[in-house]
Amino acid sequence: MSALLLRARGALRTPPTRFAGPLTSSRASITTLPINISSFLTFKPEEPVDDVKVDGYVRSVRAQKRHHFVTIGDGSSLESLQAVVPVDQAEGLTTGAAVRLNGSWVPSQGRGQSHELKVSRAAILGPSDAKTFPIQKKYQTPEFLRTLPHLRPRIPFNTTVLRFRSEIIASLTNFFNSRQFVQTHTPILTASDCEGAGEVFHIVTENERNASAANPVKPFFRRNVYTTVSSQLHLEALAQALGNVWTLSPTFRAEQSDTPRHLSEFYMLEAELTFTDSPDAIMDLLEDMLRHVASNLADSKVVGELLSPISERSPDLAPTEQVARRWRGLTQDQWPRITYTEAINLLEASDVSFTHQPTWGKDLHTEHEKYIATKVGKSCIPVFVTHYPRDIKPFYMKSGDMGTVTPSPGATVECFDLLVPEFCEIAGGSMREHRLENLVEAMQARGLSTKPSEPNSATPQEPVNNLDWYLDLRRWGCPPHGGFGLGFDRLMCYLTGVQTIHDTAAFPRWYGRCDC
Amino acid sequence: MSALLLRARGALRTPPTRFAGPLTSSRASITTLPINISSFLTFKPEEPVDDVKVDGYVRSVRAQKRHHFVTIGDGSSLESLQAVVPVDQAEGLTTGAAVRLNGSWVPSQGRGQSHELKVSRAAILGPSDAKTFPIQKKYQTPEFLRTLPHLRPRIPFNTTVLRFRSEIIASLTNFFNSRQFVQTHTPILTASDCEGAGEVFHIVTENERNASAANPVKPFFRRNVYTTVSSQLHLEALAQALGNVWTLSPTFRAEQSDTPRHLSEFYMLEAELTFTDSPDAIMDLLEDMLRHVASNLADSKVVGELLSPISERSPDLAPTEQVARRWRGLTQDQWPRITYTEAINLLEASDVSFTHQPTWGKDLHTEHEKYIATKVGKSCIPVFVTHYPRDIKPFYMKSGDMGTVTPSPGATVECFDLLVPEFCEIAGGSMREHRLENLVEAMQARGLSTKPSEPNSATPQEPVNNLDWYLDLRRWGCPPHGGFGLGFDRLMCYLTGVQTIHDTAAFPRWYGRCDC
Repeated sequence: MSALLLRARGALRTPPTRFAGPLTSSRASITTLPINISSFLTFKPEEPVDDVKVDGYVRSVRAQKRHHFVTIGDGSSLESLQAVVPVDQAEGLTTGAAVRLNGSWVPSQGRGQSHELKVSRAAILGPSDAKTFPIQKKYQTPEFLRTLPHLRPRIPFNTTVLRFRSEIIASLTNFFNSRQFVQTHTPILTASDCEGAGEVFHIVTENERNASAANPVKPFFRRNVYTTVSSQLHLEALAQALGNVWTLSPTFRAEQSDTPRHLSEFYMLEAELTFTDSPDAIMDLLEDMLRHVASNLADSKVVGELLSPISERSPDLAPTEQVARRWRGLTQDQWPRITYTEAINLLEASDVSFTHQPTWGKDLHTEHEKYIATKVGKSCIPVFVTHYPRDIKPFYMKSGDMGTVTPSPGATVECFDLLVPEFCEIAGGSMREHRLENLVEAMQARGLSTKPSEPNSATPQEPVNNLDWYLDLRRWGCPPHGGFGLGFDRLMCYLTGVQTIHDTAAFPRWYGRCDC
Repeated sequence: MSALLLRARGALRTPPTRFAGPLTSSRASITTLPINISSFLTFKPEEPVDDVKVDGYVRSVRAQKRHHFVTIGDGSSLESLQAVVPVDQAEGLTTGAAVRLNGSWVPSQGRGQSHELKVSRAAILGPSDAKTFPIQKKYQTPEFLRTLPHLRPRIPFNTTVLRFRSEIIASLTNFFNSRQFVQTHTPILTASDCEGAGEVFHIVTENERNASAANPVKPFFRRNVYTTVSSQLHLEALAQALGNVWTLSPTFRAEQSDTPRHLSEFYMLEAELTFTDSPDAIMDLLEDMLRHVASNLADSKVVGELLSPISERSPDLAPTEQVARRWRGLTQDQWPRITYTEAINLLEASDVSFTHQPTWGKDLHTEHEKYIATKVGKSCIPVFVTHYPRDIKPFYMKSGDMGTVTPSPGATVECFDLLVPEFCEIAGGSMREHRLENLVEAMQARGLSTKPSEPNSATPQEPVNNLDWYLDLRRWGCPPHGGFGLGFDRLMCYLTGVQTIHDTAAFPRWYGRCDC
């Protein structure tokens, strides 16, 4: 077993947490007893402890003549707590039920657990008709479970994934705090389409939705308004005021694609650095951030659970050893950085027959990214691919060839994608064009309007992508700067072994589906 | 001067931060020199320190015969750094310009600062045409500045407010982490209208927007989809899997109101506690959370800046003393809790002549809330008002009179609003109806459908509020639970002295306005 796994499992032996839980009034409940099942499972007194209380949900019931053996979970732990319930207290203890159990915490007679709860009184706080409960202990397909987004978080491994999400957010918050980055709330509603791809959701009121040519209504907003596709443009504005900034914010794409890597709503972690002209500084930041997360959480209880081979691992998860290798890869120093041009050369020189011929000037296909991640990253270290052709990248990227041999000068931009094994691109970034004239030129070359747009000039038929305010940022004091965006749900997949972002997002929305 | 203010100003004397900044490559930039203006301002060597570098933006220029006195800010500090620039290096050093200054950090000859930067070389990294720069040092109305959301964060006090937002997020993250609450990402797009008020924004694609009766298109989603008005319902689903949970998430209202307390897009902090039947537990949590924030941040540099009477305080801000009183109030123990019925009695007994007559069964008006907050809260302690009439509250609240004398049994619900002086309601919460039959009854009484809704049954003319999944939560193991939602932007106003949430949100969106 890998050192990582051994370390992670060791975390299960940490002492119990002993402080007040807010289960009733936090003013009155100071106690030294464990507050949840996670802390009960590490609480191993030699003598029985009486008068304990356990709140949780019934995971399984094994009825015997005098006792029922009931396993209980409360979301704090992948592992269950075993309760031994006398038959006269067992009524209503059905799978899924919310219960409060009173009794003694005693060394276990049976195998499989060191201690168990000897129940004296069981109260059903929320009954469950086990016969109709859609969540079963047997294998259920991810496709079926996606029809139950409100219930599937109760599956123990899914609960672990959600707890991991919380811990990674806290770890990132600490990372950016320690570097004096300012966390910002960038807007969701916007009149700008950052990527210019037109794959935006429009925002309309009930009245606007019901309006027609014969029955027009005054729009709620005086411009066309969309849900944002990226916080980058607004983050740049804030960086010019605050210095280095970051945000973890929902973003949206009205793409009809139904792949394991795409959702209509997903979280992006975006950071922007000012007063730097070095793409390497941006890549260093991204690398340091991910290394911080991996080092910080590798020994945590939750990662121990994610990598636990003892759990009933769904066949839909990546194998434990593969996920453990990903974690190790992230802690490596000096991730490889190769240019797009070098990548194309590598692909052309390889003896793999790709479905799509690698061609300079065209975007890398997933099969190409996979080859690079495996070959250059040795199947575990993330790889930066830099300096893509200008024509396949958005208008805001700064041109720069950086010593690379390209078909013509100025043909590439100072950008990068971060590729990881199996999952391919999880992040991308660039230097931003900070010079007004060059930005105007790049926008005009792409047919984007650089004139101030008048409110109300937009009709539903002629959407205006208002970017005049973005040009303003270059008019008064714009230093060289750059940043990156990381697909947070993709990172979640990569670090948990979940194979599709439909299953790391609690309530995934994609083409056709947004049912609750 | 108040003790709070003295403490806060004292924070300015903390030693300088001395570690690497990611200004160029983080791998190469380990240094012991200050990394930003905030740390320069507390770096007070007795001897000059040569070869220092300061990046920032020109705030003001005072030209003299041989030198220009230039103040520089970089977002890290309300205070500016003074640079003394020889005339031959001063070209382009205009208000707003982004500059890199090299020189010596020396004890100052002049008054007003202990040290200053004696510049040997000035580089203009981003020029600024000071004549056209819309941000002026003189007073500019908030209404005008709101037309420049992309530029106004550069005003030093606004930068401080944005830094404060970041610190309060970090403080809340720590608070919930220490209590083992799980942070969740609840969805923005939803098929449910939690408040049932119909003030939702609809989500449509470009094609759907351009569709007509003559030219229909297949909808992107198979139901009507809105931007969420509250994360509560989804948070309840997650709480049943994870235990206690919280989220800080954008929420939306298509309200045409234009008041200092309303936006179309705003952040809500929502928390949900499971396995509790005590509204007091929810109020304790909210009280503890706000007390934690106030105690945690009262001595911080950023709060010192917010309360600094030496800053050029805009006449649009609440007076410093008033804001300091609010901070003191939040650190008090045992915030008063009175019932709605008691509040009505108090209002009826008062000798104030209200514009709206206080009447049992009607919602409290702002003038009523102000009276309660001032009278009961002694103008500084937040006040909980509990047990409002059922008929003016949403369907999901649990009924309960809790010993209160009301016109009839079951006439009130177990809920509360938190009122603060001047700003009135900043948070509200309740126990949720966790019993299926009672919930169905409450929904039917309000005309909400309790039948499973079929996808595609909805047309734009007949929006369906799909709540069947929410009823499911009660079908299998729903313990007693409750939670609260706090208007994060309102809290920001209350703690900063900014008078309207149009000015604490970086990019405010309200009726008519979403221009960038």
